[in-house]
Amino acid sequence: MAPSLNAPVKDIHATVPTDGRLPLHQVGVSDVKKPLAIHRPARVVTLGATFSVAVDLPAERKGSDLSRNAVLLAELIDESIHDPLPSLEAACARIARELLVRHPYATRSRAEATAEYFLPRGPSPDRRSLEDFQLVAEAVASRGPSGAVEVRRAVGAEAVGMTACPCAMETCRDRLASEYPLLRDPSLRDLPMVTHNQRNRTLLVFDLPEGAEVEVDEIIDAIEAAQSSPTFHILKRGDEAAVVLAAHRNPKFVEDVIRGLLSSLPSRFPALPDSVGVRAHTRSEESIHKYDVVADHVTSMGELRSPGAPGAA
Amino acid sequence: MAPSLNAPVKDIHATVPTDGRLPLHQVGVSDVKKPLAIHRPARVVTLGATFSVAVDLPAERKGSDLSRNAVLLAELIDESIHDPLPSLEAACARIARELLVRHPYATRSRAEATAEYFLPRGPSPDRRSLEDFQLVAEAVASRGPSGAVEVRRAVGAEAVGMTACPCAMETCRDRLASEYPLLRDPSLRDLPMVTHNQRNRTLLVFDLPEGAEVEVDEIIDAIEAAQSSPTFHILKRGDEAAVVLAAHRNPKFVEDVIRGLLSSLPSRFPALPDSVGVRAHTRSEESIHKYDVVADHVTSMGELRSPGAPGAA
Amino acid sequence: MAPSLNAPVKDIHATVPTDGRLPLHQVGVSDVKKPLAIHRPARVVTLGATFSVAVDLPAERKGSDLSRNAVLLAELIDESIHDPLPSLEAACARIARELLVRHPYATRSRAEATAEYFLPRGPSPDRRSLEDFQLVAEAVASRGPSGAVEVRRAVGAEAVGMTACPCAMETCRDRLASEYPLLRDPSLRDLPMVTHNQRNRTLLVFDLPEGAEVEVDEIIDAIEAAQSSPTFHILKRGDEAAVVLAAHRNPKFVEDVIRGLLSSLPSRFPALPDSVGVRAHTRSEESIHKYDVVADHVTSMGELRSPGAPGAA
Amino acid sequence: MAPSLNAPVKDIHATVPTDGRLPLHQVGVSDVKKPLAIHRPARVVTLGATFSVAVDLPAERKGSDLSRNAVLLAELIDESIHDPLPSLEAACARIARELLVRHPYATRSRAEATAEYFLPRGPSPDRRSLEDFQLVAEAVASRGPSGAVEVRRAVGAEAVGMTACPCAMETCRDRLASEYPLLRDPSLRDLPMVTHNQRNRTLLVFDLPEGAEVEVDEIIDAIEAAQSSPTFHILKRGDEAAVVLAAHRNPKFVEDVIRGLLSSLPSRFPALPDSVGVRAHTRSEESIHKYDVVADHVTSMGELRSPGAPGAA
Repeated sequence: MAPSLNAPVKDIHATVPTDGRLPLHQVGVSDVKKPLAIHRPARVVTLGATFSVAVDLPAERKGSDLSRNAVLLAELIDESIHDPLPSLEAACARIARELLVRHPYATRSRAEATAEYFLPRGPSPDRRSLEDFQLVAEAVASRGPSGAVEVRRAVGAEAVGMTACPCAMETCRDRLASEYPLLRDPSLRDLPMVTHNQRNRTLLVFDLPEGAEVEVDEIIDAIEAAQSSPTFHILKRGDEAAVVLAAHRNPKFVEDVIRGLLSSLPSRFPALPDSVGVRAHTRSEESIHKYDVVADHVTSMGELRSPGAPGAA
Repeated sequence: MAPSLNAPVKDIHATVPTDGRLPLHQVGVSDVKKPLAIHRPARVVTLGATFSVAVDLPAERKGSDLSRNAVLLAELIDESIHDPLPSLEAACARIARELLVRHPYATRSRAEATAEYFLPRGPSPDRRSLEDFQLVAEAVASRGPSGAVEVRRAVGAEAVGMTACPCAMETCRDRLASEYPLLRDPSLRDLPMVTHNQRNRTLLVFDLPEGAEVEVDEIIDAIEAAQSSPTFHILKRGDEAAVVLAAHRNPKFVEDVIRGLLSSLPSRFPALPDSVGVRAHTRSEESIHKYDVVADHVTSMGELRSPGAPGAA
Repeated sequence: MAPSLNAPVKDIHATVPTDGRLPLHQVGVSDVKKPLAIHRPARVVTLGATFSVAVDLPAERKGSDLSRNAVLLAELIDESIHDPLPSLEAACARIARELLVRHPYATRSRAEATAEYFLPRGPSPDRRSLEDFQLVAEAVASRGPSGAVEVRRAVGAEAVGMTACPCAMETCRDRLASEYPLLRDPSLRDLPMVTHNQRNRTLLVFDLPEGAEVEVDEIIDAIEAAQSSPTFHILKRGDEAAVVLAAHRNPKFVEDVIRGLLSSLPSRFPALPDSVGVRAHTRSEESIHKYDVVADHVTSMGELRSPGAPGAA
Repeated sequence: MAPSLNAPVKDIHATVPTDGRLPLHQVGVSDVKKPLAIHRPARVVTLGATFSVAVDLPAERKGSDLSRNAVLLAELIDESIHDPLPSLEAACARIARELLVRHPYATRSRAEATAEYFLPRGPSPDRRSLEDFQLVAEAVASRGPSGAVEVRRAVGAEAVGMTACPCAMETCRDRLASEYPLLRDPSLRDLPMVTHNQRNRTLLVFDLPEGAEVEVDEIIDAIEAAQSSPTFHILKRGDEAAVVLAAHRNPKFVEDVIRGLLSSLPSRFPALPDSVGVRAHTRSEESIHKYDVVADHVTSMGELRSPGAPGAA
């Protein structure tokens, strides 16, 4: 390629807009793929992360200087190789804060990232292998009238597990009892019964005020505990039976998954302040339907702790 | 398959939740694919639509009866074959309203749909062919304390067109003028100059109060007019040049696309009340980068018409 | 847009290649979306189809004239509105044959299409609704030295159904028998037992010599019969139990699905000549794993009918 | 979860198939995500890889023991952390060879992998940042009658760059010359002229006999050299002009990209034997169309070197 030419030319971005003087909520770059080194307990991992970063744009300015976003991302990535960042959400917070420095005309910035993440998992200690989860992180920085910048972060994860349907299980038990009268014997009352079971994807995200921190591995633990059973890469024959039986002894609607997950948060995350926001989404890729079943909820740690709410005495 | 067995069994969905008594914002089915017949000006078309429909769930009820959602969708589709619906958003509104009838425990319902949509397009009348656009629609129904139901609809479309970058064009003009001094001749001042150009996807959605209506073909027209140029399936050699020249005579940042689009709405949709919400998103799949450039804004017809805003005198 | 300008300019495509005189196997357009009307038994349906069409290119020609491909597709679509085509594969055959007329320098052409397709399905006649399947079709035309053109077509479909694992079922039976000794009672020998079950996607494609025809609805029937159970959009409680029990009484590995499907073809398609090629692929989106399990095979009707093969006496 | 139970139960996989005694070409696991450490010149990188691995299945065996595939993948990943593998294709070859050890009934195995891969790129040394490419690798192992195992590997990469259309450029030059007569001045004969340009994705894969090796970074270099221009994450204003001008001075059809790439291979990879297979595919996401333009070719190093082929004297 020809040598780079960088003599000053007219700064078109800084001119007055010709298509309407309208402030814009967000202008930025999307789907920028970068490797990011972060610290994890007792190790450093390199995430293959996908970033989207943007700032707002005042009515009087034609364009946002987007090459600054690319430069900023590159600097952060380079730094992380020598000095890994604490987390994906810390990277987003750094980016969001720095975007407001590099775009002096902006008052609000956003940095979002997703990344594949691997943790050791298995049905027993000798069957462990690295399995895949999905991380999500986000940071929004706002510049107040005084120039002070406030940053809110969000951090979350998605885990794939399994659900077994409690309703079809009872209907099947009923049908089979007509056919096999012995099933009415009291000793078989708790016998796990056939039902449909399927892949379930559940996402939990915390919206964090400054100072609050969540460990993403604990988010994944919370999700896996709320599904009928976690799933695993390596399952020998006996493990397979153990997972199937565990799921059928713990049947869950999507409603149960999301309620169980949310209800568990006050005891799992006692240090999180009431102001922490909580978003959860779950999807069961139903084995008996060609479509999915979903549930979602948005709440806060305070609401989850309040009387009448789950977790309250 | 064995004959269907429908004797009553225990209604597990209606029992009290065991995983936490928490009301849930949304429980439903997602990615249900159905063919839907709708009226278009002077014709009926069958859309291949994808629906997601959901209702809220009170704290005291374990499960949402999701088979009702599937039955409702099937009935609507069957009816549309004999009596086509006016539009995709009308279908969503019908579904949202009816969901509250069939889920008496719910107070809020949502129906969303996307569909591929074809319109005749071409660089000249004899080059027309059916080209693809994307429709989106949504309806949210709320049951008030009096039992009265209010429905808000949203309708929108995405169109693929082309953007040519105004900044690189001026930098290239500058660079080339050093190399080709003749380019400084006043007669060449307006010569369209090389720049990067690329596929642009722009989405415009209106949030409609009851009574307000928008024709989706006009949404698509508005988007295509805001891009540097529309694009076409059939382009003979001369058409190709015409499209390229049109785009280079109308260079646009994503910022320009979205501002131009929003600024055009007051004159394009004079009948829409001020309370109509407007959301726009644009994405340029940059030819000179491996990532995309995006812009988005949320506003209202009232805001777009107010003094100081584009379109105001 | 400026008026279309079509005066002759230099035909760059017809010049000699500058980057190497190499014949190319395929040059064409991909992901062209068009609505296509086809005849189905007792009705006409409009498919939302996605086409890819291409021809080979001789070593001495710089470019393929791709606007001819777009014109050809547009003409076919227009015609189909007034005179629907017999099938998606007939459309591909028409396109492949016509490509060789419009690209006189080419000796081989290919047209591929996929489309969503809806058929009425349900656990019982009063629970029927339109459910989604995927069609695939392909045609390859070859111009021989004499100028005669031969066309081979392929037609296939993908259906989503359900598989229940036979191995985990027996392991679970064994485990549960230790816990519930009554399960060893001979009357319970055939009791459907818990196992993992999941969404299964199976594709069957026939490669057809000239003259041979296959009805795509019968392809879909064959696939659904080979899975543990078909799945349905509408399932009332009793239907759900019936589907779950049917699947658990018919447990299948992916190996069983594909063998059962292939073995059924001689009796399901007795009129197909031995020279018809057969390709099958199946994927179970395992509920107990985060990954999928797959199987595939390529054979011919003749091989499936030969002694030693399934279906042979 | 309950403790893992591993007492022997009936080995269903080893029984005789009930759905037809048909040998199957491939049975395996698909979309298994794992982090893989590999050596690169002067460093170790961890790829987020996605594996599919499969073996054939004899007619007399009901099932393939798929947990062995998962165990094998896990062992390889674990090892790579302490002792990184030379490459993704070396990992596939190791897996394919070992699959035949662990599935003694199989005669053929296949391991495929894709992974995101980052290399430093930029328009100038001070604008370098890590940019994303895609790696693909594959290995097929065959056990001959003597028991000897032969392994063929494939290795390739996809790079995103830019193409500018040579045809529209000349048509535009012609049109503009009527409007701006000064353009006919001989000094402007080589002036880069407007045309459509777009994102181009090109894939190059080598099929390697035992002993032959290719460095994947050199594959990526070859692809980038064959596009109108590489593209970059960080482009300051002057860089942007330089990339745009470079692309417009090097306009390419997809036909030119693929021919130029293939023609360059004999001089870029002189050590590769004639028996090495070569596959190339290119896709331009046309800015002036809603669809893509593609070209592909399959050849061998020998064919590319033969008289009459590009690169020959």
